Amino acid sequence: MASDQRSGEAPMTATRIYTYDSTLRDGEQCEGITLSLADKLAIVRRLDEFGIDYIEGGFPASNPKDVAFFREVAAMDLKHAQIAAFGSTCKKGAAAADDPGLADLIACGAPVVTIVGKTWDAQVERALQTTLEENLRMIGESVAHLKAAGRHVVFDAEHYFDGFKANRDYALACVGAAVDAGADSVDLCETNGGALPFEVEQIVAATVAAFPNQAFGIHCHNDSGCAVANTLAAVRAGATSVQGTVNGIGERVGNTDLLTVIADLELKMDARCVGGHSLTQLTSVAQYVAELCNVSVPAHHPYTGSSAFAHKGGLHASAIARFPAAYEHVSPAAVGNASRTVVSELAGKASLLAKAKNLGFDLAAAGVDVQAVLDDIKAREAAGFTYEVADGSLGLLLMRHLGLYAPAFTLESFRVIVDDREDTGALAKDALSEATVKIHVGEGRFVATGESAGPVGALDAALRMAILESYPQVAAMELTDYKVRLLDESQGTDAITRVTITATDGVDTWGTVGVSENVIEASWNALVDSLEYGLFRARLRGE
Amino acid sequence: MASDQRSGEAPMTATRIYTYDSTLRDGEQCEGITLSLADKLAIVRRLDEFGIDYIEGGFPASNPKDVAFFREVAAMDLKHAQIAAFGSTCKKGAAAADDPGLADLIACGAPVVTIVGKTWDAQVERALQTTLEENLRMIGESVAHLKAAGRHVVFDAEHYFDGFKANRDYALACVGAAVDAGADSVDLCETNGGALPFEVEQIVAATVAAFPNQAFGIHCHNDSGCAVANTLAAVRAGATSVQGTVNGIGERVGNTDLLTVIADLELKMDARCVGGHSLTQLTSVAQYVAELCNVSVPAHHPYTGSSAFAHKGGLHASAIARFPAAYEHVSPAAVGNASRTVVSELAGKASLLAKAKNLGFDLAAAGVDVQAVLDDIKAREAAGFTYEVADGSLGLLLMRHLGLYAPAFTLESFRVIVDDREDTGALAKDALSEATVKIHVGEGRFVATGESAGPVGALDAALRMAILESYPQVAAMELTDYKVRLLDESQGTDAITRVTITATDGVDTWGTVGVSENVIEASWNALVDSLEYGLFRARLRGE
Repeated sequence: MASDQRSGEAPMTATRIYTYDSTLRDGEQCEGITLSLADKLAIVRRLDEFGIDYIEGGFPASNPKDVAFFREVAAMDLKHAQIAAFGSTCKKGAAAADDPGLADLIACGAPVVTIVGKTWDAQVERALQTTLEENLRMIGESVAHLKAAGRHVVFDAEHYFDGFKANRDYALACVGAAVDAGADSVDLCETNGGALPFEVEQIVAATVAAFPNQAFGIHCHNDSGCAVANTLAAVRAGATSVQGTVNGIGERVGNTDLLTVIADLELKMDARCVGGHSLTQLTSVAQYVAELCNVSVPAHHPYTGSSAFAHKGGLHASAIARFPAAYEHVSPAAVGNASRTVVSELAGKASLLAKAKNLGFDLAAAGVDVQAVLDDIKAREAAGFTYEVADGSLGLLLMRHLGLYAPAFTLESFRVIVDDREDTGALAKDALSEATVKIHVGEGRFVATGESAGPVGALDAALRMAILESYPQVAAMELTDYKVRLLDESQGTDAITRVTITATDGVDTWGTVGVSENVIEASWNALVDSLEYGLFRARLRGE
Repeated sequence: MASDQRSGEAPMTATRIYTYDSTLRDGEQCEGITLSLADKLAIVRRLDEFGIDYIEGGFPASNPKDVAFFREVAAMDLKHAQIAAFGSTCKKGAAAADDPGLADLIACGAPVVTIVGKTWDAQVERALQTTLEENLRMIGESVAHLKAAGRHVVFDAEHYFDGFKANRDYALACVGAAVDAGADSVDLCETNGGALPFEVEQIVAATVAAFPNQAFGIHCHNDSGCAVANTLAAVRAGATSVQGTVNGIGERVGNTDLLTVIADLELKMDARCVGGHSLTQLTSVAQYVAELCNVSVPAHHPYTGSSAFAHKGGLHASAIARFPAAYEHVSPAAVGNASRTVVSELAGKASLLAKAKNLGFDLAAAGVDVQAVLDDIKAREAAGFTYEVADGSLGLLLMRHLGLYAPAFTLESFRVIVDDREDTGALAKDALSEATVKIHVGEGRFVATGESAGPVGALDAALRMAILESYPQVAAMELTDYKVRLLDESQGTDAITRVTITATDGVDTWGTVGVSENVIEASWNALVDSLEYGLFRARLRGE
């Protein structure tokens, strides 16, 4: 254990643990994720800059995209990372030298070749349908063939933990076949994700003890919710290489999140993976890869999520200021993230001041009556507003208190019409909404009508059209999320409705909130805040 | 270790591990989650049915909603669970007997009281700003005071692991103060989420050894990605109670996911928490609570996510058929989940038959093609419908397959108009919605107009008025809940919208669901189902 868990740099005595990223191969097995060739190459570039040691690119034999990947990646000028091609041992009953899959692995030119082979006796007999002896031959001969071709060879021991529990001697014999043939690393795979950390630690320790001069790696899945802990347990037991994927994407519940493991190892287990300077890129690497995968980093993700260092509750917020280690297990800056105070029903002055500063407003310096701002927020929260995910609306509220707010436009009226007609017997799928807004900008009066499938889309379209001439910046803004919540559900459809909207202009992203008994009016309020705050941010940037 | 990890029922020799749910207290600290009083009571009901031992309800002293919660929950007829009120030790420099917070905890009537107290020397001095000795008095006197009032007392030892690492003797002395005062359980809290499983195991083991006759619990957070593993490590070291929240919701990156821990303990560590029969409710409990929190169970969540047993890749899919244990660490049925991509309570024939029977339909006896019903449900779920909380819509769907369905009325058309007008400078609070519906009942044509604050209320009013003459039973029906959910948020306001409605007639309560790109149309569909199913239930009762 590091004596100060909040320090960012591993000591000079740190053990070197190698990182092996499988985002482009096992990660792409994740339901809903497809990466283009350009995406894969961009991820390689970013992981190389970050300091990952091995990047598994895919199956060179499996499809044209992967063939093209290995051709293009060979031409990249990487600083540090080595590219691995992934495949299997040779087929049963045939020589490794004649195996087309192994030939493809060699031909693709990747300096590292990783081959998976079976180590669970029941799998050999039931899935592979061959003898235990033949499987040992396949492992040994395949590794030896790749070594003879000059490759760095990783042997992925599939189902190793189930195999060890079922037939320890046979599982060890499989590892032995790879070791004897010269495998550079034997990576023990917890394939079905079922093992728990204490089992992983015992089995890795026994395996390392049986082959004391061999380098071992670990590959886990999160089916029991323990992938990170299992990986750390293997390192404690002697593994020196960790496999995983960025953000833990992968089949079923996903693979080990390699970024969380790197942070845990560097900040808490005296190990060195990418180094403390690179570690500050952790959050941006998570976001970059998520963006290319077309997903978000989950808000509550360890280390890299937007809520990972967010604090709610007046007690905690003031306590953090006095003693950060009590509520932040590591310094957020060490992993490139930031502390964030969430304004809530429970907030105190200290957290409001910190939050305002976050948004660029120095309330203390401006001489604002902070208690009056807090009272305003509390009154609005009591009425149903929430500012936790609505930085934009909070910013506008603060601007009002600071005397900085001037409305970009004022409403004269709006009208929304939703029409539906039964044409067929089933309800027609073509209900259409139309909205007309009448607004004023300075001396000008603008009337515009928008149409959309839904009423809020129609209002959004009409409002943008009405203000576009005065504020061409709105063309760059778009709504990316729209959420509706009924607050006092005992009132049924007359309940207070809260709408939250997230918008982006490609530079900033902000949330706003609207509240009303009427879902359309609540949406309108959130829409207006969204455009007003977007225009304010654009002004700040001089646009 | 259980010899067959895929079996669903713990053996008779299993250790009893108690479950303590903090969803309503620590879970509600999660950014973006707010639960109404009705939500909290519904969660209590569901967790009680599931077999949770202790349910922490909130801070009775903190706000009117929690005061009302403890009043209402006391009147509920729970099968198994005990309700816990949460608070702190008495204040420094004042007697426990005079502490208003402790008085509120006793006055709220909850049979279990959990109080948090400090155990990290630095926290006592820096945050509490008192002496180590005074903190010991506060712990001991507070526990003794609550015991004297006849409560089951849980002492939450805040920052215990950091405290133990910093000053082992003092941390143990804090535990000793609670033990000596008669605490029923001392729950060791890994407050900042920074510890790793091997540390947790060592520290819990040392603490249990120091107080061999005391019951201990464990409370973890997931900041290092190890909350589940830390909790399991504590159980291995002797803790007999596990704290957590449903789906792991909570501040920052969240608390221990109690459901994952329960599955790991029952299926992999020979422990008994809720029992194997209840364990099959795991997935539906996760979904039910998520629905009330207005979030989704993450697709890749262990055990309960929709992808937890989904398989991609031809190799794996065929291998699963031959040898399921190789790719599924537990049987999905053991946790109420299903293999492949569909995740509905109704995924299998048996569960559909059981669910139908629940609703009063005997599909087998009626000779219905159950596979055709399942296919229909799957197709509708793929389009965005969900039947988890929509028994009414499911009942109508079954009636269609049984040939029992005849529409109570048919739509000719509807039109909804929402008008708003800026009167004052702030947006006026008087936006009004008006809806006109034209419907047919038998040979009759009825046109009615309704008004309400919101468009759905207006539609509801108009539709009721239009059918009241034909169906006077609707007068007894009212909507009690109305929820809106955007399904594909990347589409912004044009996303598919799912509306769920809960209605009651004072005898039955039922849910219905509607889906459309247009929130008004989705609401209409759910409203129509709601009234139709209500009329059907009334007919069944001979009304």
